[in-house]
Amino acid sequence: MAGKNKKKARLWKARAKELRRALARLGAGASAPEVSPLAPKGPLTLPPIAGAEFASVAAGVRYAGRDDVMLARLAPGSTVAGVFTRSATRSAAVLDCQAKLAGPADTQAGAAILVNSGNANAFTGRHGQEAVDALGAAVSGRLAVPVERVFTASTGVIGEPLPHGRIAEAIDELSARLSPDGLPDAARAIMTTDTFAKGASAETRVGEVPVHIAGIAKGSGMIAPDMATMLVYIFTDASVAAEPLQEMVRRQADLSFNCITVDSDTSTSDTVMVAATGRSEAPEITDMRSSGAQAFEAALGRVMLDLAHQVVRDGEGASKFVEIAVTGAASDSDAHRVGMAIANSPLVKTAIAGEDPNWGRVVMAVGKSGAAADRDRLSIDFGNIRVAENGWVAPSYDEAEAAAYMKRQELTISVDLGIGTGCATVWTCDLTHRYIDINADYRS
Amino acid sequence: MAGKNKKKARLWKARAKELRRALARLGAGASAPEVSPLAPKGPLTLPPIAGAEFASVAAGVRYAGRDDVMLARLAPGSTVAGVFTRSATRSAAVLDCQAKLAGPADTQAGAAILVNSGNANAFTGRHGQEAVDALGAAVSGRLAVPVERVFTASTGVIGEPLPHGRIAEAIDELSARLSPDGLPDAARAIMTTDTFAKGASAETRVGEVPVHIAGIAKGSGMIAPDMATMLVYIFTDASVAAEPLQEMVRRQADLSFNCITVDSDTSTSDTVMVAATGRSEAPEITDMRSSGAQAFEAALGRVMLDLAHQVVRDGEGASKFVEIAVTGAASDSDAHRVGMAIANSPLVKTAIAGEDPNWGRVVMAVGKSGAAADRDRLSIDFGNIRVAENGWVAPSYDEAEAAAYMKRQELTISVDLGIGTGCATVWTCDLTHRYIDINADYRS
Repeated sequence: MAGKNKKKARLWKARAKELRRALARLGAGASAPEVSPLAPKGPLTLPPIAGAEFASVAAGVRYAGRDDVMLARLAPGSTVAGVFTRSATRSAAVLDCQAKLAGPADTQAGAAILVNSGNANAFTGRHGQEAVDALGAAVSGRLAVPVERVFTASTGVIGEPLPHGRIAEAIDELSARLSPDGLPDAARAIMTTDTFAKGASAETRVGEVPVHIAGIAKGSGMIAPDMATMLVYIFTDASVAAEPLQEMVRRQADLSFNCITVDSDTSTSDTVMVAATGRSEAPEITDMRSSGAQAFEAALGRVMLDLAHQVVRDGEGASKFVEIAVTGAASDSDAHRVGMAIANSPLVKTAIAGEDPNWGRVVMAVGKSGAAADRDRLSIDFGNIRVAENGWVAPSYDEAEAAAYMKRQELTISVDLGIGTGCATVWTCDLTHRYIDINADYRS
Repeated sequence: MAGKNKKKARLWKARAKELRRALARLGAGASAPEVSPLAPKGPLTLPPIAGAEFASVAAGVRYAGRDDVMLARLAPGSTVAGVFTRSATRSAAVLDCQAKLAGPADTQAGAAILVNSGNANAFTGRHGQEAVDALGAAVSGRLAVPVERVFTASTGVIGEPLPHGRIAEAIDELSARLSPDGLPDAARAIMTTDTFAKGASAETRVGEVPVHIAGIAKGSGMIAPDMATMLVYIFTDASVAAEPLQEMVRRQADLSFNCITVDSDTSTSDTVMVAATGRSEAPEITDMRSSGAQAFEAALGRVMLDLAHQVVRDGEGASKFVEIAVTGAASDSDAHRVGMAIANSPLVKTAIAGEDPNWGRVVMAVGKSGAAADRDRLSIDFGNIRVAENGWVAPSYDEAEAAAYMKRQELTISVDLGIGTGCATVWTCDLTHRYIDINADYRS
């Protein structure tokens, strides 16, 4: 009997080992959320921005034991600009922010931004706007800022009424906690499925005077209405008139947040807002063409691009960070279209996950993009490896070399269409089993 | 000792059971390709079509031990029509077919179709056209059909030169094997990653005379340039003039093959061709508006839709067949756009794989589609379950009921936009771990 049971134990142990290996091979061994392998190293640090204060608190919107609401107070004189999702089903908070930014602004009154995680307050009928109004009134009353200058956002599950009473009750505590050093904690408070807190900063000079920019972002997947809306808040002590600020944000968003994709899906709540407190000694930027404006816009662009890349690095299930550089297109917009067609192709993304230098799929994605292209003028490089040219595989192409390159964590795919001067660069991640684990799980 | 080993055996057995369940949950228990769970039951049977003969043979293009080339011979008087991929990087065979169909046709000379699997002859530079020319000449010489009436297609790996010599050598044998009963075998010869052979047939009457239609398709994924291009060949004994035949194929393709998606990727070689031999006694169809034309087009449409559905049912990794019916749109094209946005959304597709009635993702997909929509007029049904209306979850909605519905293998998602009379129906499958297994594997 002893021998029989021993043998049984050995057999079952071997079977368990085999199954465990099969699971690990599928990348599904660990079900607990981990930090993305593509996350920046070290803790998030951000400089204070004069005229801006931040607080966060655990209001119990959905998550237990973690901050889930952040408040930003902006000093009198602050200008605010923003770009938002183009979704036809956008959330109440997005519609409210858009209406407020379109109206006349009393910048002397200061401004406030209130963001919660855990509940998106999206597709909640008339309750959506009621919640936005209630929170706007509560912040306005407590901080003595006109309600037209209170901007809110919500991120988390869709279709459930926002427990805005719980958030309103936390506003006294948030107000008491406001601090110039609160931005990193605010970055953590707005996380949902994010695996790391995202922030970036830059410094430049306007009229010889140093100005500072610091921003935070959340998003894991560009884009996932359920739990991973992209929200971005950037603050600067520069003084920038509202109109050029809006123009700069729009332009730089087109070069950063509008050039990333995780899964091609677009949130109902995506928001990018920039607030300029004017508390540095630098002269006000009123003319987009001034050297100060150009320096500031360049620094703002760097912060936005850094944050955009961090969102891709935290893409759901991402194991590779991929830059796709398109040149030689008939126009910049054609180049962008080709880049996004490659970046969104499930076949390209699964090939990258499988470390397969499957350039045929890149050719396919170019072809389906709708952009002008000529099969025989196209060339494709993976890193510095020429893969395809003149309508066929490159004579120098060595599959083993390309396969070795694909094992890297950071990849560049360059496509030259050979027909014009249009160019664009976009960023994406791969499509892995973990993306399906995250998104196929029944909501719980 | 005995007790200890018994306990160990029990523990390891329990652990193995748990791991096996985890694996099964991931749908990855079996790694060998199986027949899609959505495949039609029973063997493929198709009626003979007078004036059309078929043969298939194992030419060893890439696969060993299976047929990989099919030949169809069409009797003198046959008309041929076709629609093709719109890809800008389409294959040499597609370009060749398009050129031949655009030119003047001597229908009295008959026609031939030669298709190989295992190699797509796509993105192979000038070798691509050389291979097409060589095969066209070989078939033309053997069957005494002008080369302008020989249509070829290739499906399989991209970027590798087609071993057209091996195929040309097989043409004698193919020619000797031509038979009216060869269509089901031809369906098998053109398979690549397909898990079942696809065919459909219909019968109708033109001028009181019975006419017959039979077609075959391959495709596993709409769409996968690597190994799963969609090819469709349909044959009829009706007599249809070339122009109305082309118009019918175009129109019915828009309602069938252009309404399906597996992964939003578009092949470089997609081909749908229809040949009408005119060997029935029915009068020739020359006027699209005649009752005979309408009966024929309806039957042709049924065959095309059946084949299109079979392609979705064999979608890579598919475990659910999903119909998405959109009504109340501003236009039919808006409805189609909304349907495809839902059908292509990785978040919707993973939710379906996870049997999660996650209607928030349907709202998101409507919003991102670019079609005119109003959040508060939208309604969504899963099967007969009203899920959302008036900008929020429906009052009658019962999550448990919806979750039970999602466990079915065949699902219908209905979206009414509530703003117009435009409508469209599209079909898709879910996005599972198996899709990633199939497509992330290094080519081998």
